[in-house]
Amino acid sequence: MKKNTMPVGIFDSGVGGLSVVKEFMRILPEEDLVYFGDTARVPYGTKSKSAIVRFSINNILFLLKHNVKLIIAACNTVSSVALDTLQGSFKVPVLGVINSGVQQALRLTKNEKIGVIGTKATIKSNAYTQHIKRFSADTQVYSAECALFVPLVEQGWLNNAVTKQIVNIYLTPLKKKGIDTLILGCTHYPLLKTVIKQELGNRVALVDSAKQVALQAKRVLKENNLLNKGKAKATLSCYVSDESEAFKSIARQFLGFDIGRVVKCDV
Amino acid sequence: MKKNTMPVGIFDSGVGGLSVVKEFMRILPEEDLVYFGDTARVPYGTKSKSAIVRFSINNILFLLKHNVKLIIAACNTVSSVALDTLQGSFKVPVLGVINSGVQQALRLTKNEKIGVIGTKATIKSNAYTQHIKRFSADTQVYSAECALFVPLVEQGWLNNAVTKQIVNIYLTPLKKKGIDTLILGCTHYPLLKTVIKQELGNRVALVDSAKQVALQAKRVLKENNLLNKGKAKATLSCYVSDESEAFKSIARQFLGFDIGRVVKCDV
Repeated sequence: MKKNTMPVGIFDSGVGGLSVVKEFMRILPEEDLVYFGDTARVPYGTKSKSAIVRFSINNILFLLKHNVKLIIAACNTVSSVALDTLQGSFKVPVLGVINSGVQQALRLTKNEKIGVIGTKATIKSNAYTQHIKRFSADTQVYSAECALFVPLVEQGWLNNAVTKQIVNIYLTPLKKKGIDTLILGCTHYPLLKTVIKQELGNRVALVDSAKQVALQAKRVLKENNLLNKGKAKATLSCYVSDESEAFKSIARQFLGFDIGRVVKCDV
Repeated sequence: MKKNTMPVGIFDSGVGGLSVVKEFMRILPEEDLVYFGDTARVPYGTKSKSAIVRFSINNILFLLKHNVKLIIAACNTVSSVALDTLQGSFKVPVLGVINSGVQQALRLTKNEKIGVIGTKATIKSNAYTQHIKRFSADTQVYSAECALFVPLVEQGWLNNAVTKQIVNIYLTPLKKKGIDTLILGCTHYPLLKTVIKQELGNRVALVDSAKQVALQAKRVLKENNLLNKGKAKATLSCYVSDESEAFKSIARQFLGFDIGRVVKCDV
C-alpha cells in the first residue's frame, strides 16, 4: 500500500468528532477516513487525566491497526488534557484541535480578549489559556465550563427556552469581560451556534476548530507528500465501542446526512 | 471468615448508588459495605444493553474478590436492562432496585396510575412497566425519559429556575395522565425531590427505591442467617474506576457526610 493512499484516522469520545469528519470531507475530499467513537466510555469531559490518556492510547492503537497515515484527536478534552503525552510516541503524527482553534482566534480578535468554553476537563486543564499566552502573552483569556451543553445537544434541545437560559447563565460572565472572540472548545458546541450568537450578538466572533484542524491536516499531509491525489471517491469507515441506538440519529445532526453502516469494536 | 461477617457489595455506574449506601447505613448499621462506582465508564443510561451487561459483570466480579455475601445493583439502568441476565449466575444473590420500588408504588397508589421516570436505557427497557403489570395487570404505567436530570444533579443545580423548567417539561405529560404515584427510577433523582414535589403537588407520592432495597436486603440476609449481629462499628470501603475530582464533592451531596478515602481500581 502506498503511504499517500492510506486513510486518515479521526477519533473522539463519541459522536462529536463527526463535525471534524464533515470538514475533512469538504476540505480533503480525496482522503479516505476511518472514524472511531469511544461510545462505551463517553463522555471524557468529566473524567480524570489518567483515564483520558489511557482511553486515547487505546483509540490511537485501534486506528493504527487500520493503517492510518495521520491521526486527529477530534476531541477538545483529549487535545487539552492528553495531547502532550500522546504526541511523539506513535509512528504517525497526532494532531489535536487546540492549536488550530487558537490560531484562528488570535487572527480574529481585535481587543485581545478571548473567551473559551468547554467541558470541565478541558477548562480545568488550562490548555487553551496556556496555548494562547504562548503566542500572545498580553491577550486576556476568560473561560467557562459548560457542563450541560453536551447533554443538551444529545437531548436535541438546540434552540428552546431552557437552552437559551442555560447559555445565558454560562456566557454572561464572559460577556461582562468584553470578549470579542469565543472559542467553541468542544465538538458538540457548534450545534448550539445559533443560540450562542443570539446571546453574544454579532460583534463576538465564534471559532469552530473543526474547519481549522482540517486545514492544518491538509498542510501537514502536503508537507509530507502524503496527499491522496486524484482518487475518484473517498470512503468513510465508522467504528464505535458501543452501538447505542442514539448514535446514528445524533450522527445525522452532526454530518447532515445518514452515516450508513457503523461497526462495533472493542478497543 | 464466618459468612455472616462478610460485607455487602454495592455497585453503581458512578456516584448515585451512594443514596443506597446511605439507607443501608441507617437500616443495616452493623453491615460492612464495599462500594464500587464505575466512574471511568459512567453514565450507563445512554449505553447499549450489551455494554451495560458487560460492565455489570466486571463490577460483580470485582466485588466478589472482596468476599461479599450479597450484591446490590444500586443502579436503575443495570437493574432494568441487565438483572435478568445477571441473576442466578453468581455464587451470591444479586438484588436490583426495580422490584422494591415497584412493590412500594403498588402499596401507595390509590388510582392505579403510576408514573416512572428514568434514563433513556431504563425507560426504553420497559422493565418497570413489565414488572408492575406482573403484579397488577390493571395498573396504568406512564413513563418518561429524563436525560438531563443526571447532568443537572452533577452540575449541582438542584433547585434553580432552569431545573424547575426542565422538571416541568419532563413531568407535564405524566401529570396530565393523573398519576398519584411516581417512581424515581434513577439513584440521582432523589436529589431533585424538592423541585419534583413542587411540580407535582402533595397528592402525588414519590417512591425512592434506595430505602426499599435496603429493607429487602435486610429480609434476604435474615432469611439466609447472614445478618452481622452485634458488630460495634461497621466499615464503608469505597472503590472507583476513575478518580475524578468531582466524585468526592458529589458524594457528599448524596451521603450528607465526607466519604473519606476512595481507592482507584481497574475492573
